[in-house]
Amino acid sequence: MAEAAAPTRRARGGGGAARRAARSAVSFETARYIERNIPNYEVLTTEALEVIEHNAETILEEIGVNFPDNPTALKRWADAGADIDGDRVRIPRGLARQLCATAPGSYTQHARNPERNVVIGGNNLVLAPVYGPPFVRDAAGGRRYATMEDFRNFVKLGYMSKWLHHSGGTVCEPTDVAVNKRHLDMLHAHMTLSDKPYMGSVTEPSRARDSVEMSEILFGKEFVAENAVMTSLININSPMTFDDVMMGALEVYAQAGQGCIISPFIVGGAMAPVSVAGTLTQVLAEVLAGIAYSQLCKPGAPVIFGAFVTSIDMNSGAPTFGTPEAAHITYGAGQLARRLGLPFRSAGSFCGSKLPDAQAAYETANSLNMGLLAGVNFMLHSCGWLEGGLVSSYEKFLMDADQLGTLHHLAAGVQMDENAQAMDAIREVGPGGHYLGCAHTQENFKTAFWKSDVLDYKPFETWADEGARDTQALATARVAKLLSDYQQPAMEPATREALDAFVAQKKEAEPDSFM
Amino acid sequence: MAEAAAPTRRARGGGGAARRAARSAVSFETARYIERNIPNYEVLTTEALEVIEHNAETILEEIGVNFPDNPTALKRWADAGADIDGDRVRIPRGLARQLCATAPGSYTQHARNPERNVVIGGNNLVLAPVYGPPFVRDAAGGRRYATMEDFRNFVKLGYMSKWLHHSGGTVCEPTDVAVNKRHLDMLHAHMTLSDKPYMGSVTEPSRARDSVEMSEILFGKEFVAENAVMTSLININSPMTFDDVMMGALEVYAQAGQGCIISPFIVGGAMAPVSVAGTLTQVLAEVLAGIAYSQLCKPGAPVIFGAFVTSIDMNSGAPTFGTPEAAHITYGAGQLARRLGLPFRSAGSFCGSKLPDAQAAYETANSLNMGLLAGVNFMLHSCGWLEGGLVSSYEKFLMDADQLGTLHHLAAGVQMDENAQAMDAIREVGPGGHYLGCAHTQENFKTAFWKSDVLDYKPFETWADEGARDTQALATARVAKLLSDYQQPAMEPATREALDAFVAQKKEAEPDSFM
Repeated sequence: MAEAAAPTRRARGGGGAARRAARSAVSFETARYIERNIPNYEVLTTEALEVIEHNAETILEEIGVNFPDNPTALKRWADAGADIDGDRVRIPRGLARQLCATAPGSYTQHARNPERNVVIGGNNLVLAPVYGPPFVRDAAGGRRYATMEDFRNFVKLGYMSKWLHHSGGTVCEPTDVAVNKRHLDMLHAHMTLSDKPYMGSVTEPSRARDSVEMSEILFGKEFVAENAVMTSLININSPMTFDDVMMGALEVYAQAGQGCIISPFIVGGAMAPVSVAGTLTQVLAEVLAGIAYSQLCKPGAPVIFGAFVTSIDMNSGAPTFGTPEAAHITYGAGQLARRLGLPFRSAGSFCGSKLPDAQAAYETANSLNMGLLAGVNFMLHSCGWLEGGLVSSYEKFLMDADQLGTLHHLAAGVQMDENAQAMDAIREVGPGGHYLGCAHTQENFKTAFWKSDVLDYKPFETWADEGARDTQALATARVAKLLSDYQQPAMEPATREALDAFVAQKKEAEPDSFM
Repeated sequence: MAEAAAPTRRARGGGGAARRAARSAVSFETARYIERNIPNYEVLTTEALEVIEHNAETILEEIGVNFPDNPTALKRWADAGADIDGDRVRIPRGLARQLCATAPGSYTQHARNPERNVVIGGNNLVLAPVYGPPFVRDAAGGRRYATMEDFRNFVKLGYMSKWLHHSGGTVCEPTDVAVNKRHLDMLHAHMTLSDKPYMGSVTEPSRARDSVEMSEILFGKEFVAENAVMTSLININSPMTFDDVMMGALEVYAQAGQGCIISPFIVGGAMAPVSVAGTLTQVLAEVLAGIAYSQLCKPGAPVIFGAFVTSIDMNSGAPTFGTPEAAHITYGAGQLARRLGLPFRSAGSFCGSKLPDAQAAYETANSLNMGLLAGVNFMLHSCGWLEGGLVSSYEKFLMDADQLGTLHHLAAGVQMDENAQAMDAIREVGPGGHYLGCAHTQENFKTAFWKSDVLDYKPFETWADEGARDTQALATARVAKLLSDYQQPAMEPATREALDAFVAQKKEAEPDSFM
């Protein structure tokens, strides 16, 4: 496991007072991104992968993909050797894969606190929070439209979450801010309330440019020209449609050398075939076309092979989460991404439940475990997702973020040194003894086992005396504690003033729009 | 995926009435045991496995294991070449493994309904319910001591559960029946209320003999002499102690050719070292000694390499479940079992939570997923476990049993035939279309995706109108429906009378004891 990068110094020394101080100290400890020391899980044979790769090329060559309302893109594709027919781009077999070859196998996304930098790709796993919900829910207030205050709260919770490496992007949609201005407030919140890496706006090319300009204020223009300081989410409008707004944002980010996730957005049975193999084929074709296009915009632009994939309940038409079919697709997509040599984005704290209850947790745990073993490198939505992505849940954010600790410990693999073999302990204790007091246990127990900060391990009677609280109630208390403990990370006053001024000037420059 | 073995015939034909009839029909459909079509997940290198195997032999040779109050066992060990010192048995390097070689790699456990027979070993996974809790819980009645009525209810629920292959054993402890007689009522319930395979009593050698005799009534004496009709749970009193009661039951079952799980019972840090490698070493040593002993009792007796392993919360001393350390141990134990060529038992619906809430579901899903990928062949406790095994939960039984469906679908692997490749569908729909109405979707949607029978997939507004129920509330309703729909499987009256008579006669033969 990657060790904690920057643990807060705590009071040390003997005595109960010091221990009490240590227990009550505010912890800003944040784990480093995960470096896997365990194998990936692979469900597809090489033969199956080759069939899928062949079929994906057939899609690109014979069916093609659409780049509507985007003459520049059509021109780029024509120049590269594709066949253009209206909006349709047919890509000769092998061309897309060849264009993808200039994309890096991994890249560093810088944070304003360099200890929070993340390396996306290879054996690594970077965890980022939920993205996009228009609603929020908590136990006290129920389900309601998200506001900018909610947004700031989720950024603070992400900053305080030990196992979360990334501040994310649209942690909820701040519906009380004009659509054409909310990206400014969102970026301002990520930049000032957290020091973890963040995502840029993709809802208009001009907003992507604003994101780059604000990053230039935060990091310096030269630094941004040379380094990736954002990873932004470019969804493909599956099946096989690359809309001009998303492509416009991609063009901005790629040309600025900033990272993008190129991600089919698929509810299986609606935007892709109901079969796993068919969905994987379409996913690969779409990603090949999207990443090839990013490299036509700027060879070497950092990109991630994305796959947002769920199944569907054919009775209600509702997307379903944490399902075995989604797992097969994610395992397979990971294999395809590794054969392309690209970082892979998939999985998350997905669930269809309306409440942070058992359904939510089953579905989420299914997806988180699968994501780790599938070799995911960037896991968006790793905490806080509720109700099919319509809701950012305060309590579930904390509950999921706590579970992310299990992924760190799983990924660390099994120690096999002499201390881990523990033969001295087994000799010392012998048949019929117990290990609680033996020297090996005393020396190792603090780090031996992952420990939850949220879940209940108390004896039944203690738990009952304390109000017989369920997981949601325990999380409600922890949300309140973290928000009350929150302290803003330091920032140069000049930087803060420049960011404030940029946002104010941009907001003044045009009237509010809620469309 | 193994197909359903015996789907109930339902009304067929057109029209709304037929569809309504099909929806309301009582379903006794039971899936066949899982035959994995996916690889196992392996965390340990061959080198690490060899170190653990070497160290386990060192334990057996140098430290030894205890067989207290069991002169017959000591005699058997001495005759086999072990070194005896009081209760301590030291086993020369290699001897235990050599004795294990006569144990079969897999065996069939017969059910009274042959369609419910299970093959334990190989690539298979057989799912059995929770075992042992003295308490039950449901939403209406809260937590209370379990009774024989609860026991019968859980057997009925197991019989009705589509994804459960096995009726289990002590699905809860019927505390209202005398300790020395409750095994009779428990076996009678499994035999008469279900037609799935079951487990025998292990709490006294005489009760194991009663289990064999009752099975002889059910199956016929000759059949039981030739076939395994029970798989019973023999726990090792870790560290390295084989108590005489459990060994007495093992002796009865092995000599009768009946199956046994030989299972270390380990809370890491208490009954084994706090390290994964140390725990695996002790587990292997204990299993080698236990299985070798079973083969000393009767070469060829069917046995399972068991590993009940959890970690511990060092603050409270409480066992913890669904943890990454338990996952590492289970993955590793699966590798060790396969190298021994023996069926493997581990994992389950483990959780520490007091309620069937999100904590329960995270922990359970972590363990179920891990158990599937670890290559478990027999999963005891696969549904219904609550509060560290103190409680059998009615609602969680249903919730977990539903999740077991995901394991069936995961294990089926990925289809790669022409229909699964779905190229015609992708051609038909094309860029910008949707798949909901296409021919491929219409032909495949009914079997394409796993579908929960418990979880909520409804739109928010419908769900809110129906009472905004959480998972527990949905499960409460389903428990009531299944118990109300329950119909007893048919049995020859003569068999039933003989079972009744055996139980009555045995109960009359001695006074009640509650010790």
